[in-house]
Amino acid sequence: MNFSEALSKSADEINTAIKDLLPDPEGREARVIEAMLYAMLGPGKRLRPFLVLESANLFGVDRESAMRAAVAIECVHTFSLVHDDLPCMDDDDLRRGRATTHKAFDEATAVLAGDALLAFAFELLADPDTHADPFVRCSLVTLLAEATGSRGMIGGQMIDMTAEDDTQDINTITRLQRLKTGALIAFSCEAGALLGRAGGEAQMALRNYAHDLGLAFQIADDILDVEGDAAVVGKAVGKDADAGKATFVSLLGLERAKEQAAMLAQQAKQHLDIFDERSELLKQTADFVVSRKS
Amino acid sequence: MNFSEALSKSADEINTAIKDLLPDPEGREARVIEAMLYAMLGPGKRLRPFLVLESANLFGVDRESAMRAAVAIECVHTFSLVHDDLPCMDDDDLRRGRATTHKAFDEATAVLAGDALLAFAFELLADPDTHADPFVRCSLVTLLAEATGSRGMIGGQMIDMTAEDDTQDINTITRLQRLKTGALIAFSCEAGALLGRAGGEAQMALRNYAHDLGLAFQIADDILDVEGDAAVVGKAVGKDADAGKATFVSLLGLERAKEQAAMLAQQAKQHLDIFDERSELLKQTADFVVSRKS
Repeated sequence: MNFSEALSKSADEINTAIKDLLPDPEGREARVIEAMLYAMLGPGKRLRPFLVLESANLFGVDRESAMRAAVAIECVHTFSLVHDDLPCMDDDDLRRGRATTHKAFDEATAVLAGDALLAFAFELLADPDTHADPFVRCSLVTLLAEATGSRGMIGGQMIDMTAEDDTQDINTITRLQRLKTGALIAFSCEAGALLGRAGGEAQMALRNYAHDLGLAFQIADDILDVEGDAAVVGKAVGKDADAGKATFVSLLGLERAKEQAAMLAQQAKQHLDIFDERSELLKQTADFVVSRKS
Repeated sequence: MNFSEALSKSADEINTAIKDLLPDPEGREARVIEAMLYAMLGPGKRLRPFLVLESANLFGVDRESAMRAAVAIECVHTFSLVHDDLPCMDDDDLRRGRATTHKAFDEATAVLAGDALLAFAFELLADPDTHADPFVRCSLVTLLAEATGSRGMIGGQMIDMTAEDDTQDINTITRLQRLKTGALIAFSCEAGALLGRAGGEAQMALRNYAHDLGLAFQIADDILDVEGDAAVVGKAVGKDADAGKATFVSLLGLERAKEQAAMLAQQAKQHLDIFDERSELLKQTADFVVSRKS
C-alpha cells in the first residue's frame, strides 16, 4: 500500500468515526447538527487526524483512543474553515469542491455549527473513553485550547485579517502561519505523544517535526495558489495574488519557495530518526505535503 | 450588606479576575484580545459567575479555584452574546448599554473574539490551578462542553432561530429556554458541587435549583421585554413582540407569566433547604431574578 492509499484508507476510517461520534440530527435543533455533519464530511484529505493516528501509532496507543483525538482535531479544523469562509471573513462560496456551509445552509447556522464543533472537540477529549487517565485528558484539552485560541490559530487568523501588505516581511508571515496553520498541526503530532505518555525527547521530536511540516505545508499552499488548478485544489486559486496579499511566493519568489518547502520537508523527516520504522508514514507525509496537487 | 451590594461586590471581584486571567493584548494579534476584553468587561450583573462562587462557597471551595471556573462560564456566556448579536443572527447594535462587539470592532473580529473566548473557557478549566484533581477538571470540561454545544445552549439558539411562531407552544418554548439559557445556569450551579466534590444529593439539589432558577430568569426576561425601560435594561426592548415571536408572556399572558416566575423562584429556594445558612445568597438570587429591572 503506497502513501496515498494509506491516507485514503485512513480518511475512510475517520469519516466513519465522525459519523459514529458526532450527535445524531434529532429534535428541533437538528439543523445545526446537520450543518456540523455537512461541514465535517465534505471531501478532504483528513491530514490532521491522520497525523494524530500516526503519531499515536508510534507509541502503540489504542486505536479507539487515537481516533477520538483525531476526530477532535478535525472538529476544530472544520470549525475554523466554516467561520473563515463566512462573508465577513474570507467570503468563500466554494470549499473542498462544494458549497461552503453558510451557502448550503445560512450564515446563522454556519456560525452556530462552527461554535458547536469547537465545543464538541473538548467534549470528546475530556471523555473517559479517550484515555483512562484524566491527567492525559486534561493535557489534551489544554494543548488543543492553546493551539486554537488567541495565541494560536485564532490569533493567526486575526493577524491575517489585519495585516497591511507593506508591513509584511518573511518573519511576520512565518509567525502568522505558525499560528494560523502550524498550531493545529503541532497539536496533531503531539497528541499521539500525550496519549502514549511518551517521554520529553519523543514529544520534542514530534513538535519539531510538526513545526517544519506545518511551514512546509503552508508554503506548498501558497505555491498551489499560484500554480494550482481550481478544479483539483477544490477552492478558488489566485485569490492571494488578486488581493495583493503577501505570501511566501510573493516574498521569496516561486523557485526559492519551492526550495524552502523541500528543505523543510527534509528537515521534518530527520526529526523522526529517533523512532523506528513505525514513523515511515509520517516521513512520507512530509514528502506528500510538498508534492500534493490539492 | 444586602443582596444587590453582595452581587455588585462580587461583580467587581469577577471583573478584576477577568483582567488577571485573560491574555494581555500584545503582538499583532492584539486586536482579537482587545475585543475579548471589551466584550467581557461590558457592564453586567455577572450572575452566572456569581452562581459559581456561591455554589462553591456551600462546600468551602478555595476562592481562587471557584473564581477560575466563574470566569470560564462568563467567557462562554459572553461568547454567546457576541455571536448572537451578529448581523446574521439577532443583529443587535446595543448590548449592556453600549455598542455590541461587532459595532465597536468589526464583524470578523467579533466572530474571532467569540471563538477565542470559547476556547479560553476550556483552557481555564483544564489548568491545574483550577483544581488539583484532574478528574474534577475533566468533569468541569465535560459539563461545560455539553451545556454549550448542540444539545445545550447552541441547540437552543438554533431552535430559536428556526422556530415558526405557529408551532410554538409552552412545551416547545420551555425546552428551547432550558437549552438556550438554562444549560449555562445549570453549569454555574453544578460547578460548585464538582469543585467541592459534593455528593450526589447536593449536586442534584443544585441542579434542581438551577433548573427552576433558569426558567424563572427567562420568564422574567420576557416580562422585561414587555414592561422594561430600554435605558435600564441596557438593550432594545419590545423586540420579541415586534418580531411576532412567541414568548412566555405571549403564551401565558402577563399576569400568569408573573405568577409562574414567582412560583418557580419559590420552588428554586426550597431545593436549597438541605444546605445551611451559606445558601442564603443563592436563595436571595431566586428572588432577585424575578424582581430585577434589568
